[in-house]
Amino acid sequence: MNIKFIPDYSDIEKAHQTIQEYAHRTPVLTSSSIDKIVGADLFFKCENFQKVGAFKFRGACNAVFSLSQEEMEMGVATHSSGNHAAALALAAKMRGIPAYIVMPETSPEIKKKAVAGYGAQITFCKPTLLARENTLAEVVKETGATEIHPYNNFYVIAGQGTAAKELIEDAGKFDIILAPVGGGGLLSGTAISAKQLLPKCKVIAAEPAGADDAFRSFHSKKRVPSKNPKTIADGLLTSLGERNFKIILEKVDDIVTVSEEKIVESMRLIWERMKIVIEPSSAVPLAAILEGKVDIKNKKVGIILSGGNLDLGKLPF
Amino acid sequence: MNIKFIPDYSDIEKAHQTIQEYAHRTPVLTSSSIDKIVGADLFFKCENFQKVGAFKFRGACNAVFSLSQEEMEMGVATHSSGNHAAALALAAKMRGIPAYIVMPETSPEIKKKAVAGYGAQITFCKPTLLARENTLAEVVKETGATEIHPYNNFYVIAGQGTAAKELIEDAGKFDIILAPVGGGGLLSGTAISAKQLLPKCKVIAAEPAGADDAFRSFHSKKRVPSKNPKTIADGLLTSLGERNFKIILEKVDDIVTVSEEKIVESMRLIWERMKIVIEPSSAVPLAAILEGKVDIKNKKVGIILSGGNLDLGKLPF
Repeated sequence: MNIKFIPDYSDIEKAHQTIQEYAHRTPVLTSSSIDKIVGADLFFKCENFQKVGAFKFRGACNAVFSLSQEEMEMGVATHSSGNHAAALALAAKMRGIPAYIVMPETSPEIKKKAVAGYGAQITFCKPTLLARENTLAEVVKETGATEIHPYNNFYVIAGQGTAAKELIEDAGKFDIILAPVGGGGLLSGTAISAKQLLPKCKVIAAEPAGADDAFRSFHSKKRVPSKNPKTIADGLLTSLGERNFKIILEKVDDIVTVSEEKIVESMRLIWERMKIVIEPSSAVPLAAILEGKVDIKNKKVGIILSGGNLDLGKLPF
Repeated sequence: MNIKFIPDYSDIEKAHQTIQEYAHRTPVLTSSSIDKIVGADLFFKCENFQKVGAFKFRGACNAVFSLSQEEMEMGVATHSSGNHAAALALAAKMRGIPAYIVMPETSPEIKKKAVAGYGAQITFCKPTLLARENTLAEVVKETGATEIHPYNNFYVIAGQGTAAKELIEDAGKFDIILAPVGGGGLLSGTAISAKQLLPKCKVIAAEPAGADDAFRSFHSKKRVPSKNPKTIADGLLTSLGERNFKIILEKVDDIVTVSEEKIVESMRLIWERMKIVIEPSSAVPLAAILEGKVDIKNKKVGIILSGGNLDLGKLPF
């Protein structure tokens, strides 16, 4: 289904048209008390308010609605225990096609329920990457479904880029745009939009020090996978995808790492001051600011809050 | 300063003009997943996003900016350990006048800091109603400040009524509007606006069963104070004010009570599905719906979320 390997801005514009009747145009919020603390003007793009509670819906939706008639009938498949699974399941339901989701049998009940609630067919597997990939290969072989990778996918990247496009359209010029980085779907899409619309704007990614493969890959210019990543920001445990890395090397200005302590502190600050629920991954860019890793003094800064899904019974404070 | 005892809708219109450059016009949010659970269309007026994190800023701001030049110079005073203290302190700061706040010495550090942070002069007292009233009387005598009662005050009631006015202006007609009730400032203001703008709309209040003085007062038509009220909804521990009760008897259609368990369940549901932080008091109206105390099937229902201030280190889940 992918002809071009890497999307450009016109693909993001197309994605935006494709998803606009299904995805929320999420609000951009500000907080004068956080601005005072950091000494800059921050604009938060609230993807925690997106469908399924995360930006992931943009990419999954674009992928599902970009399928040809022929592909469509066979459905879509992926392996994921997180937001991408729910996003793909909902997008497939909206288009009325089957979704086959491979999930580790150890996934939290609440996530299994959410995915099943969207009508997806779940195949459980052992909780290893090998088991997930093998099980997915079998499912794809049996069903003929199109695999939609959570981030190393042309249409997914184009879809994720629509968040930064909206942020810039709604809040104007920025000096810096910050996003968290895990597999790189959000970051690569963000960089394509930002560099097209605001060539002078810096795009900087923040990553937990405990899962710093993007940081190491970016600075060594060689894609290195995560080794036993460990962080409370559970959306950022994955390693950079090939397409994502290519875009990031070309368009991202810097990647910095942050401590677990600052992630928790930033998450709490956003909850307390802005009265919104965000997941730990969303707090990583603000953590980079509070830790002094990014110079934002008196600048106008956009921050993408990636999502708001977490177990309220297991909060770190 | 009060000539009329009870405000009417023209006073709410005036209040709205007075506060508009200082208070946020808060958003009205919806949740398709909560609508599905309850079988109705709910519209949440998000006063958790208001200045100081609660609707209280509307009333305090209107009171402060309605003072005469002469009154103004002497400042304002109140006794409060909660949102009203912070709201009055901020409003006074905005008008550049002194605020004298009497707080129980047992108030949480975070609340003392917030009030001090707005530049108010705090006088601490023993944590009893008598000590609070006596200390306030002394402060008022010494300073000549105008006492601004947290709810039994003409201008405060008019200010609180602006939330329902905005809700109706922004989201149209309603079959029912629900609000929590503590001292009755929010409820009485809401009822004045709703009955003026939508004469057929029912106004129903929800109250914790553990602090049910408004429920008992309303149904016996005689104002009875709370006796040892106990509820997680700490904004609703107070007893109805005299002015508030008069308005409520005349304009409110029903008052129902809810269990602590449903308050916590409703609060969690709103956090999880809407990704917003609300305090327990805000969850009381949805609790009444989930408990089947209000018939809302297929109706269009407005709900005022009163605020979002709570200690994230002491959550009930």
